[in-house]
Amino acid sequence: MCEACGCCDTETVRVEVKEHILADNERAARHNREHFAERGLLSVNLMGSPGSGKTAVLEATARAVAGRLRILALSGDLATDHDAERLRAAGIPCHSITTGTACHLDAKLVHHALHHLGDGHADAHSHPPADVLFIENVGNLVCPAVYDLGQAANVVALSVTEGEDKPLKYPVMFKRADLVLITKVDLLAHLPQVRLERLHYALRCTMPEPRFIELSSLTGQGIGQWVSWVEERRVALARGA
Amino acid sequence: MCEACGCCDTETVRVEVKEHILADNERAARHNREHFAERGLLSVNLMGSPGSGKTAVLEATARAVAGRLRILALSGDLATDHDAERLRAAGIPCHSITTGTACHLDAKLVHHALHHLGDGHADAHSHPPADVLFIENVGNLVCPAVYDLGQAANVVALSVTEGEDKPLKYPVMFKRADLVLITKVDLLAHLPQVRLERLHYALRCTMPEPRFIELSSLTGQGIGQWVSWVEERRVALARGA
Repeated sequence: MCEACGCCDTETVRVEVKEHILADNERAARHNREHFAERGLLSVNLMGSPGSGKTAVLEATARAVAGRLRILALSGDLATDHDAERLRAAGIPCHSITTGTACHLDAKLVHHALHHLGDGHADAHSHPPADVLFIENVGNLVCPAVYDLGQAANVVALSVTEGEDKPLKYPVMFKRADLVLITKVDLLAHLPQVRLERLHYALRCTMPEPRFIELSSLTGQGIGQWVSWVEERRVALARGA
Repeated sequence: MCEACGCCDTETVRVEVKEHILADNERAARHNREHFAERGLLSVNLMGSPGSGKTAVLEATARAVAGRLRILALSGDLATDHDAERLRAAGIPCHSITTGTACHLDAKLVHHALHHLGDGHADAHSHPPADVLFIENVGNLVCPAVYDLGQAANVVALSVTEGEDKPLKYPVMFKRADLVLITKVDLLAHLPQVRLERLHYALRCTMPEPRFIELSSLTGQGIGQWVSWVEERRVALARGA
């Protein structure tokens, strides 16, 4: 429209590089997937906005499955080790992935982190045996959905305070979700403008197979249902489904 | 560490393309900045997580400045026109920028949208005269901070429900913020685990010149203080500060 707009060459190169990056990522994701399959490890990519309650869900999960399921976690963050510290305090062996300025995890970052999940030695098989690996992605409702990490399932934490229309506004994320955890439902009584049925409608419009659980990590509501879902996926994985 | 990791060439090209993209963006941002300066228009890049209350702040702003300041808005979204519809209903001329899969606005998208802010005709000077332009960015605490849009000020909406440590965990965003709006403070009474002084501390650790306002678009708390800040910036702009 005016001279500030003209840079088609960069645009073409940008698309080509993006394709290369995604192809590279796909290769690393395949490698991770094989690693998880060999160990019978259910891997879950847990995504959601900053502050949607991902870490709190994992803390509550650790309490609920103690003695029943062995869980591990990787925690993606631009800076700080806060979430990994919280998860370790909850009894989950966890390694932090510091992304710097990157707004998402990728399969290679996850692969590297797996080598450090155990005793700190960079060894291909160093992480302890476990039943479930939760990969807590960087807080972001956009790009994390685009990068396959080799996971068996995508789970999105969406808090009721974020409003009713987020699935419609961030469709890429919700189209790829196997399950949505509607978090912080204990706050619903104080959110006169939020109607849960509208959120359900938005999820049904967006998710290919709508599946969601209303949950509060504070009161424990829905945690049992969520843990059952994880256990069902574990059984399905063991059966090769 | 194993064969899945080797792709140094792509890495180099990736960095080069990113530099090209940012240089292109810088050029378009300069063009926008000149456009805003010529018209004496204060341009504000309003950023924040999905559901942090950006649109609600602008609706409350429209009510507070009615008859005093002429405001315009651009609204960035991956999909849907919801926010732009809400802003138009609040009396703010607004054009929606649909980014598709992009997690942030860039200067060229803003430039194009400016041409369509008026009567719909693509004309370099079609948008109505105004005092303030709010550019509501895509809901994301990471990438929007990296792309200069030509704005005069960066404002970040951060809701109390997102927790206390977000400034430390997403430092790029908060290092570049001129002002942080701590939103949804009406919910504080129901968030026993959130302590406002810890959030203040995190902001003081991260922002070069810490400036923040506690605000509720629902009760109106802090809206007057926020509008005063906007008006001060308008006066400073007119003085060439």
